[in-house]
Amino acid sequence: MSTVKCSIIGATGYTGAELIGILTRHPNVKIAHLTTRSDESIPARTIVPGLDKSQNFLIKKTSNKDVVRDSDIIFLALPHTMAMETAAEFLKEDKLVIDLSADFRLKSIRVFEDWYKTEHTQKKLLSKAVYGLPELNRSEIRKANLIANPGCYPTGAALGLLPLLKEKLIDLDSIIIDSKSGVSGAGKKLAMATHFVEVNENFNAYKVNHHQHMPEIEQTFSQVAGNEVKITFVPHLLPITRGIFSTIYVKKHAGVKPNRIVEAFEAYYKVEPFVRFLGEDISPAIRSVANTNFCDIGIQINPKTNQVVVMTAIDNLVKGASGQAVQNMNIRMNFSEETGLV
Amino acid sequence: MSTVKCSIIGATGYTGAELIGILTRHPNVKIAHLTTRSDESIPARTIVPGLDKSQNFLIKKTSNKDVVRDSDIIFLALPHTMAMETAAEFLKEDKLVIDLSADFRLKSIRVFEDWYKTEHTQKKLLSKAVYGLPELNRSEIRKANLIANPGCYPTGAALGLLPLLKEKLIDLDSIIIDSKSGVSGAGKKLAMATHFVEVNENFNAYKVNHHQHMPEIEQTFSQVAGNEVKITFVPHLLPITRGIFSTIYVKKHAGVKPNRIVEAFEAYYKVEPFVRFLGEDISPAIRSVANTNFCDIGIQINPKTNQVVVMTAIDNLVKGASGQAVQNMNIRMNFSEETGLV
Amino acid sequence: MSTVKCSIIGATGYTGAELIGILTRHPNVKIAHLTTRSDESIPARTIVPGLDKSQNFLIKKTSNKDVVRDSDIIFLALPHTMAMETAAEFLKEDKLVIDLSADFRLKSIRVFEDWYKTEHTQKKLLSKAVYGLPELNRSEIRKANLIANPGCYPTGAALGLLPLLKEKLIDLDSIIIDSKSGVSGAGKKLAMATHFVEVNENFNAYKVNHHQHMPEIEQTFSQVAGNEVKITFVPHLLPITRGIFSTIYVKKHAGVKPNRIVEAFEAYYKVEPFVRFLGEDISPAIRSVANTNFCDIGIQINPKTNQVVVMTAIDNLVKGASGQAVQNMNIRMNFSEETGLV
Amino acid sequence: MSTVKCSIIGATGYTGAELIGILTRHPNVKIAHLTTRSDESIPARTIVPGLDKSQNFLIKKTSNKDVVRDSDIIFLALPHTMAMETAAEFLKEDKLVIDLSADFRLKSIRVFEDWYKTEHTQKKLLSKAVYGLPELNRSEIRKANLIANPGCYPTGAALGLLPLLKEKLIDLDSIIIDSKSGVSGAGKKLAMATHFVEVNENFNAYKVNHHQHMPEIEQTFSQVAGNEVKITFVPHLLPITRGIFSTIYVKKHAGVKPNRIVEAFEAYYKVEPFVRFLGEDISPAIRSVANTNFCDIGIQINPKTNQVVVMTAIDNLVKGASGQAVQNMNIRMNFSEETGLV
Repeated sequence: MSTVKCSIIGATGYTGAELIGILTRHPNVKIAHLTTRSDESIPARTIVPGLDKSQNFLIKKTSNKDVVRDSDIIFLALPHTMAMETAAEFLKEDKLVIDLSADFRLKSIRVFEDWYKTEHTQKKLLSKAVYGLPELNRSEIRKANLIANPGCYPTGAALGLLPLLKEKLIDLDSIIIDSKSGVSGAGKKLAMATHFVEVNENFNAYKVNHHQHMPEIEQTFSQVAGNEVKITFVPHLLPITRGIFSTIYVKKHAGVKPNRIVEAFEAYYKVEPFVRFLGEDISPAIRSVANTNFCDIGIQINPKTNQVVVMTAIDNLVKGASGQAVQNMNIRMNFSEETGLV
Repeated sequence: MSTVKCSIIGATGYTGAELIGILTRHPNVKIAHLTTRSDESIPARTIVPGLDKSQNFLIKKTSNKDVVRDSDIIFLALPHTMAMETAAEFLKEDKLVIDLSADFRLKSIRVFEDWYKTEHTQKKLLSKAVYGLPELNRSEIRKANLIANPGCYPTGAALGLLPLLKEKLIDLDSIIIDSKSGVSGAGKKLAMATHFVEVNENFNAYKVNHHQHMPEIEQTFSQVAGNEVKITFVPHLLPITRGIFSTIYVKKHAGVKPNRIVEAFEAYYKVEPFVRFLGEDISPAIRSVANTNFCDIGIQINPKTNQVVVMTAIDNLVKGASGQAVQNMNIRMNFSEETGLV
Repeated sequence: MSTVKCSIIGATGYTGAELIGILTRHPNVKIAHLTTRSDESIPARTIVPGLDKSQNFLIKKTSNKDVVRDSDIIFLALPHTMAMETAAEFLKEDKLVIDLSADFRLKSIRVFEDWYKTEHTQKKLLSKAVYGLPELNRSEIRKANLIANPGCYPTGAALGLLPLLKEKLIDLDSIIIDSKSGVSGAGKKLAMATHFVEVNENFNAYKVNHHQHMPEIEQTFSQVAGNEVKITFVPHLLPITRGIFSTIYVKKHAGVKPNRIVEAFEAYYKVEPFVRFLGEDISPAIRSVANTNFCDIGIQINPKTNQVVVMTAIDNLVKGASGQAVQNMNIRMNFSEETGLV
Repeated sequence: MSTVKCSIIGATGYTGAELIGILTRHPNVKIAHLTTRSDESIPARTIVPGLDKSQNFLIKKTSNKDVVRDSDIIFLALPHTMAMETAAEFLKEDKLVIDLSADFRLKSIRVFEDWYKTEHTQKKLLSKAVYGLPELNRSEIRKANLIANPGCYPTGAALGLLPLLKEKLIDLDSIIIDSKSGVSGAGKKLAMATHFVEVNENFNAYKVNHHQHMPEIEQTFSQVAGNEVKITFVPHLLPITRGIFSTIYVKKHAGVKPNRIVEAFEAYYKVEPFVRFLGEDISPAIRSVANTNFCDIGIQINPKTNQVVVMTAIDNLVKGASGQAVQNMNIRMNFSEETGLV
């Protein structure tokens, strides 16, 4: 069984910790370096509960030179806008880079700079980056050297509509995405909005139609539909640690039979290892996907109004981040796609 | 200061306990009877935390005759379909009845019987019942002898659209209501769906487009719009105790200026004691209305797509049930509307 | 009905917000000033959910001179070690000062300086300060001009043992206090320890035998027992917003009959408006005291081992802080003790 | 790599679901049968989130004969008092039985019958059963045919004191165990005590000195100490899904140096794969052991009072139940002890 040497750049956050957990259980992976910009080293066990007692990994400041020397694959778990130059450096050394930030997800530089309020310094790399949603781009991922791992909201949203967009069954101007995310999606940075007392027993929307994942969702939808798609997107904060539930409202074309909708989902996801289509009149549940790489999907169709409700549930840290990153690695390295993930 | 004698029929549930708490703090109320069908008496203090040590109310089996003799106002906190006959009995004795069940909310017997799967035995009373949403029917409430207190979801939904429906600013076939409710809304009955382990760290939709509050919302919207309105309604279960947050999606008519939308809310709610319109681009939060009779509202308008997002937050046990019942009593008895509620 | 003018210095924290809520509902209180050191003013309604729409209080930077001119009673809700000089200033102007910080709770300057790592600059005032635990010091509170409102843990601990210490029924060297507190007790300051993701679905002890409330508990116990008492004190963090539950382990003297223990609690708390002794073999519950000024107490006695388990539950923000401060004000001003609190 | 065929009797509860999850990931295990007494079959995937899409296990009514025919190892996840006869039946057929109920944990029939209020029908088997706490009985487990898997509270309690009891460092009459458990420990049975609204934002003690795990803890302590030990045991209900935190209070013998205590823990647990001794003045945390088979331990010692505080944290469903059952299987089958558990 072949083995690859993996490093994680920026391993102290919630996605970093999740990634350490998955990679240490992966039979084809040997951990090379776990890095942080901080001068203070952290034993990985203090942020990754399940490590076995013999696994004494230290997360520590490490030079890129050392990382290059010892790694085949480099995961970037850096804050948005901080990954692009690091990625460039590792790509120059012919490493496979899987970037969990947003830096290479948007194909349009203008859109990126509008939403992230910063200049993109690696414009040439953008065209080489492959958007790492396996259910959409599996064949491109197999050949990619720079994989832009999708955002958490965009993963749950895209998986909910890919079959309907591909089969051209819905009105493109009718898409509304009402998403509810657990707090780990906001990361580890301290803020009043994530203070326990402010979140607990609370619920609210935020960044209504202004969340930076909105153009990412629109880009995927537009690509699949072959037309520019604009959406309404309302994210909300759920008082739980993990999970995103998205309730998606679309109008099917008047002539499309309900059964056609169901068949589209069944056909698209039959062979997908990590998407479970539950059927009609059933809701997925965050509890059923938490700590897994699965996306569960249920639908409800109103034949009179043509309204279709698609509901998706994922774990934002797994299928919405680190699990999907490893799924991408498995595809790229020709490992069985589920290795280390179930 | 005038005083009224109040009884609660079915006082052991969550709305009953909330109502006991509010009524015992109300300066114009004297508690007459708190009843239960169970043979076992329960001291009110065991389910109402804040009662003062001298308040030794017992919730116990009580004959309707005793209730009639000792009460001016009778609140029914019975399960749906069990209140109608009890209400009839008390109305015959010229008591004011405030019914927190769904039995007198729907004006159409056919719709009631379709959704509640039971015969309505008090058809004549239906026409006398006033739907107790003060922001809609205040003048009728002043004269009513039978007040049908609105459901929790319908309260949050109606308050979100009353101004836009009244002013005829929106497309009536575009209404989508995505609601998220705390668990107390499901009542005290034991069920796997409300077992702590099943709810905690979870989130899911249920009864998608099949919840019994749907026709109640449609009835209110149709009445205000002057046209039959059909909606899409998706309720979800939030892992918190109290509160409902509704995200409402509607299309404004193409010619309507955003400012017109804002003004409609401001005008409608300026004088309302319990509705706080927060303005544009701001989300309400459950935490800000929990344990209060307030409904907070925020909106977001996309001038390009005409999509309007209206967000409302209430406490399902207060403005969505027992607080609103007391607000209705205050209106009916000519007490200051906020008495006992702030 | 007489009215007093009250100001709160440092009104933006969790105890400040709770105090605003209680005082605005208090029939004998008129709010004078709500102050903050910050240059930014905050409408009180944004942090106090239940304020009625007409109550437009602003929390803002205010000179002590203005506070003195307009207030009869001044509540200090400042961080520990920051209240002492402010208190001195207001006392000089003959105001009644109720201090919610720890600055005047400890009678020994040495102990204060050891535990709070700061010099006490108002040593003379210490002897004038009355420790505001009504169940212990009611008659002194009636005459006090500087009331040191007890800490949250010390309130729950003291109320659990006052009857047994007063009656000299227990071994003084056997006291163990195992306390569990909701997160609001840690205040509003941002810290990784209060980040939602770190607290949620978690539980741990902290500052084992090193919490600054330990000498405050020991001081009260020593005073009542008439002997120096040393305790074991282990605080834990509960993943809830409000409430402290303390499980207290003591040995009764070998000759003391179990019934003697029960009678001591009954006798001590019979007339107390805010302490409810539930009896033997029953546990109090945080849910029954949350949002109230009550302390509930249950006990269990093992006659063979002499081990007595006393369990107390309070709301840390009410009986453990702002409610108790108002109870103290009521006593001092000769208002009925429960005014504004039930 | 050798493979064993495993069945689970009573696989629909929380420990059953956890066990399915662990066994399906175990490289040496092939699932034979998953059984339930109910006539309704349940797909395992509906209660075990992480099963891969190809794993179509059905939990269904199955005859013991079929189980015997197809299994090498049989796990009993039945309610207490229902496992004893089932165990006897499988033992007669020379199967290895790992019983997760309490039926074979207590060596004294009198104590069993006193606490579980039922006759023990398999008295002869009791002497053959090995109490499956690997850190205490590893060599006996290697040879056992009937393994009585320890209770959740007893596991956290025993691991906290084994080193000190074995080295005879503490006063045996001073032991107090203050435990806090997540709700999954109460199982899936519906009860008001586990209704979401009753548990959420709440905390209370229950069965103070009357919990059925108390004699199990005392039996272990007595065995290790070589003397009869009586304890004080207060369990509390934590509003979280998983985890038990135990704060254990003991007096060290007056002459014992603090360092001796630390060394005892270090020596005992150095080679244990699933116990992590964190050291002095540090608290374990439930979050660090949730979803793992680890027990984390921290201590605090007061040299003046001789009071020692030992804190342990485990996941009640893993180290406190199903993980430990698999650890026992690994030991018995001579698999590496950590197989399938990290």
